[in-house]
Amino acid sequence: MMTQNHSNFKRLTTETAITLAKKLGLINSAARLNCKEIGDGNLNYVFHITETDTNKGIIIKQAVPYAKVLGESWPLTLKRAAIEANALIHFRSYCPEFVPQVYYSDERLAITIMEDLSHLKIVRSGLIDGDSFPLLSQHIGEYVAKTAFYTSDYHLEPSVKKEVARHFTNPELCKITEVFIFTDPFFEELPGDFEVELTDAANKIWNDQEVILEVAKLKQSFETEQEALLHGDLHTGSIFASETETKVIDPEFAFYGPVGFDLGQYTANLLFQAVTRDRAGKEEIFTHLHEFWYAFEETYTGLWEGQNKSPFRHVKGYLPYLLTKFKKDAFGFAGCELIRRTIGLSHVADLNVLQDKETKITAKTTTLKLGASLIKKREELDVPAVIELVKQQTLTSYSPL
Amino acid sequence: MMTQNHSNFKRLTTETAITLAKKLGLINSAARLNCKEIGDGNLNYVFHITETDTNKGIIIKQAVPYAKVLGESWPLTLKRAAIEANALIHFRSYCPEFVPQVYYSDERLAITIMEDLSHLKIVRSGLIDGDSFPLLSQHIGEYVAKTAFYTSDYHLEPSVKKEVARHFTNPELCKITEVFIFTDPFFEELPGDFEVELTDAANKIWNDQEVILEVAKLKQSFETEQEALLHGDLHTGSIFASETETKVIDPEFAFYGPVGFDLGQYTANLLFQAVTRDRAGKEEIFTHLHEFWYAFEETYTGLWEGQNKSPFRHVKGYLPYLLTKFKKDAFGFAGCELIRRTIGLSHVADLNVLQDKETKITAKTTTLKLGASLIKKREELDVPAVIELVKQQTLTSYSPL
Repeated sequence: MMTQNHSNFKRLTTETAITLAKKLGLINSAARLNCKEIGDGNLNYVFHITETDTNKGIIIKQAVPYAKVLGESWPLTLKRAAIEANALIHFRSYCPEFVPQVYYSDERLAITIMEDLSHLKIVRSGLIDGDSFPLLSQHIGEYVAKTAFYTSDYHLEPSVKKEVARHFTNPELCKITEVFIFTDPFFEELPGDFEVELTDAANKIWNDQEVILEVAKLKQSFETEQEALLHGDLHTGSIFASETETKVIDPEFAFYGPVGFDLGQYTANLLFQAVTRDRAGKEEIFTHLHEFWYAFEETYTGLWEGQNKSPFRHVKGYLPYLLTKFKKDAFGFAGCELIRRTIGLSHVADLNVLQDKETKITAKTTTLKLGASLIKKREELDVPAVIELVKQQTLTSYSPL
Repeated sequence: MMTQNHSNFKRLTTETAITLAKKLGLINSAARLNCKEIGDGNLNYVFHITETDTNKGIIIKQAVPYAKVLGESWPLTLKRAAIEANALIHFRSYCPEFVPQVYYSDERLAITIMEDLSHLKIVRSGLIDGDSFPLLSQHIGEYVAKTAFYTSDYHLEPSVKKEVARHFTNPELCKITEVFIFTDPFFEELPGDFEVELTDAANKIWNDQEVILEVAKLKQSFETEQEALLHGDLHTGSIFASETETKVIDPEFAFYGPVGFDLGQYTANLLFQAVTRDRAGKEEIFTHLHEFWYAFEETYTGLWEGQNKSPFRHVKGYLPYLLTKFKKDAFGFAGCELIRRTIGLSHVADLNVLQDKETKITAKTTTLKLGASLIKKREELDVPAVIELVKQQTLTSYSPL
């Protein structure tokens, strides 16, 4: 089912990328042009074409037939490019303010041409650099609420939702999540990557049967619950932002899954910053956490009350039940992300940029402990309690500013 | 997405059915043949062809382009015939002992030719007639365990499961369940069909906010949880049996859903008998309930221990967690079935054959009350507690034989 003929596949070069953009009328043919390959070439080639005089530009992204980062033994078909382009189009239809525009896509050549976002900065790098994104978390909260609500059975006719879900069946990319987030990090004998000083902390997780049982349940939720069309990889490296603008990119992992997964990925990636920052920096991240969850719940509630098409929409307790479920799931998924980014194969710069070895090991020990707590206590936690956990685990005597 | 061109569709007649069977070599062309149309023609035409001398036969089933039972305003495409044929083939690959053989299928003409089961009796009629099916519930318990386990992420590679689930996306037939089981019966203003004497009991359900909230959750589970490939309509009218043999037919509602739905449908349809029978008859049904659940849990546990491919299979508490979830879901779904067959548009003969008006109203009042109890108390119930509920609600002074 997953074999694919790549004989028609042609890799773009800077020259052919320019030719394509000209042919499609997406750039001014008469202008002087600049084209740079800015992707890492592991999963995709990314070309940034600009008109030298006006600096107006476009992005051309092309998926490669084999995801080199995982080796040729882990082939990813080009279908992921079509999923990404279609997900961008879907998400943009629900919240154009937070999703780049797709100008053109070619499924056969795995090419997507989209809006140039080079005036914005990748949020993970920005947060590490100490940049301030005052509207970021409010925007992402709104983005998740809108995409989660509008693609659910509460807005789409359930028959239509099933067709959309079928369209976004994404076994290859989901498998990456299933293995690297929900499996490998939780078994000593499976692949991992961490400093020898973390062995004790990792052992505690592998031997904590309560953690492993709860991860089994979370993995099952990821594999079975088709609540909404998710981004599927909503970490701070998938978001471009400035002080006023926020755009969510790279939804190649998009699939129908549990809403808490998107919420949890973003939460966890804020928590990496909360763990590594100094006291004042932590407060800034705590504000982000509050704003994110407030915006999500506020926006989702507004959509539920105004646009819900289910006959059950007025039933007392239904919305609170759902919001509680989303939050509980989210904290569990966030816990898995905290752990897998610490001892799994794919790390985050937030932790790895720490220069001082002891500081780094302390931070990573904290993300492991925090992850385990989120997984085990997710039923009883709320945002203030999560913040309290971070404080307890990172500050011996903490007094807020 | 759901439009379909029927211009190539040709309705079979007894003559063309025989011609087709001869052409395919499925019957002896030289034999004297008998062909009877035995379907009701609402959803399907069903032809039973037998060789007059040997009585050997086959069944030819053809779906009609419009499901007349719901009116032409509710079109069902012919795709359901392919889903049914494919589901039979899938299920038979996992438990050939309980599923008829498919000899031939033609997706374009919506034709399936399958094993003749005319030596068996439809279980609903058999139970109403007082026939004994001593192995039935053990068989159905095994059937649900095998189909639920072998089509889940615990046996199929999760990527493969997603492709199978995509294949069995079944929006049209799921919509029937969503409307007729999970919606209409729970709102006074939506379509229903019941005796005027049941108005008070129906009002109690419509005004019981706890019931309505729990039904909302159950409907959400049906719409979102892709645990396994379900039969989707596993009532006693979908089962042929004798004293020794059991075959499950008609899986046109097949889709990936929560395992508890199949378990709950069968449980509820046994409960109609438990409510309407006399004391000794009740005991026979209680035995069926025990045997069904014992066989399901025993078989599922054996498969889990012997053939589970998940790295989490040995985690303490995981299997009990799942079995508890299946049971809790099942009792909830059973409650919905009990209620919708009483006040919804589609009734069951078990209740409607009752001749005495007062007896019928009492039985139907009981199925409504029992349904509400199952929905509300499903978290704390087990099989003995369900049986106790039936006894409490049907016998004023009950002493077991």
